[in-house]
Amino acid sequence: MNVAIVGLGLMGGSFALALRQNDLSSNILGIDKNPEHQIEAVKQGMVDRCVSIEEAAKVADVIVLATPVNELLAQIAKVLDLLTADQLLIDLGSTKFLLTESVKQHPQRGSYVAAHPMAGTENTGPKAAFSGLYEGAVNVICDHKNSHESALKKALHLFDGVGMKTVFMGAEDHDKHVAYISHLSHVSSFMLGLTVLNKEENEKNIANLAGSGFESTVRLAKSSPEMWAPIFAQNKAQVSVALREYINHLEAFKKMIDSSDEKSMVDAMRKANDIRRILDK
Amino acid sequence: MNVAIVGLGLMGGSFALALRQNDLSSNILGIDKNPEHQIEAVKQGMVDRCVSIEEAAKVADVIVLATPVNELLAQIAKVLDLLTADQLLIDLGSTKFLLTESVKQHPQRGSYVAAHPMAGTENTGPKAAFSGLYEGAVNVICDHKNSHESALKKALHLFDGVGMKTVFMGAEDHDKHVAYISHLSHVSSFMLGLTVLNKEENEKNIANLAGSGFESTVRLAKSSPEMWAPIFAQNKAQVSVALREYINHLEAFKKMIDSSDEKSMVDAMRKANDIRRILDK
Repeated sequence: MNVAIVGLGLMGGSFALALRQNDLSSNILGIDKNPEHQIEAVKQGMVDRCVSIEEAAKVADVIVLATPVNELLAQIAKVLDLLTADQLLIDLGSTKFLLTESVKQHPQRGSYVAAHPMAGTENTGPKAAFSGLYEGAVNVICDHKNSHESALKKALHLFDGVGMKTVFMGAEDHDKHVAYISHLSHVSSFMLGLTVLNKEENEKNIANLAGSGFESTVRLAKSSPEMWAPIFAQNKAQVSVALREYINHLEAFKKMIDSSDEKSMVDAMRKANDIRRILDK
Repeated sequence: MNVAIVGLGLMGGSFALALRQNDLSSNILGIDKNPEHQIEAVKQGMVDRCVSIEEAAKVADVIVLATPVNELLAQIAKVLDLLTADQLLIDLGSTKFLLTESVKQHPQRGSYVAAHPMAGTENTGPKAAFSGLYEGAVNVICDHKNSHESALKKALHLFDGVGMKTVFMGAEDHDKHVAYISHLSHVSSFMLGLTVLNKEENEKNIANLAGSGFESTVRLAKSSPEMWAPIFAQNKAQVSVALREYINHLEAFKKMIDSSDEKSMVDAMRKANDIRRILDK
């Protein structure tokens, strides 16, 4: 199967490596606007060669878009324009509603499968890519009834092949759920980093005290601003609601602290402990 | 050296195991009000036997208090009352100002070393203990000038021996710094867990989507409420200020999201990215 991957960063690069690792594609073409990423991707053996998206559209059985969501919004319809009915277009973007809306009426909509693998790290670029990124991850396919059955089947062959477990969901539901389970974590982590760094300007010793707990909570604050700003913008209504609920919980807990209400603190934390049920599933 | 450890949970149990591992103590006594923890600690070989604190005070060269900070506040002066000048008392509590204040005028103050190893996990109890917990961690000793030189020397022998790097700090400064680098992370994580769990009551699919990013950010929400409520209460002034600053950052970021101000979002996240400097130190 000829696969072309657009965007050779963490997501696209890891997808290429996973396809190779699992013998899913004999020929992988790469597309990236950054010449250094092109060179690195070929050097790492991620892709066989780099081409233009027009060239890739002529020969690839599958085109995988792994670019930031603002670029996806500009790309999906244009790439669909280039494809014939037996070619497959997949995107791996972290938002789904605006993207699927943008091609809802497109005559080639059936050739498109809107996916979101729940996988990633805080690192970016082809050097951050690794073949095991998708192993065991949950993958969400949105509005799958708008994809042709053959397109869906081909996409699932690849997603299953790299070790993911796919679930199906409406695009609007997806965006609401990831606002809580993914986008909110990123905001909370970015702002925790900012709070500590601001304090550190006057209090030089803070950094020395960072332990593994802080490290874990703030890890996502290393993530790419250029990737995340468009995600927050595209999913702003849902992220804003989730963030308001989060701030309300923080305000309520602050009141318990201010009034030394240890009983209420214990109750709230005991409820939060139930997160084990989700994490240890 | 005879060592007695009060509180055979994650911190105390791991300290006992680390002392054994590094041949620092030939005879370790355990004190714990929970009979199951006593049995487990002896079974695991953490301690030789369990005794009362009065009995331990008669024979131990060093007593290490590893109980929650509310118990510490009730214990430190009482244990100091039992000791002679050549015995050493150490506590491992996460707050330091109220604890050191409570024995500032105690005639035996010099026998006490107020420590806070920046180590821990989200798990609790003797089963969570492991000998490597302290390896490579930073340890803070507060108000060290109020400890006798011989007491400090003996304490450093143990802390160095289990692989920690000790720094010195005033108790008030310590409490301010850990409010940012440790206590705030715990609040942010507990409340993130609560926000997602509350949402999940109506939206059943959320849990399925949890990826490694969420897992990392919410990990501390598994921590012990009984241990953390007294910490927040004892350090309430500092935690409250840190929490207000965190909420202010979240509110400011929410405004950027609501107004789709991607440029300001990118600027804020780029500043937060600088957390790499602290984490990768």
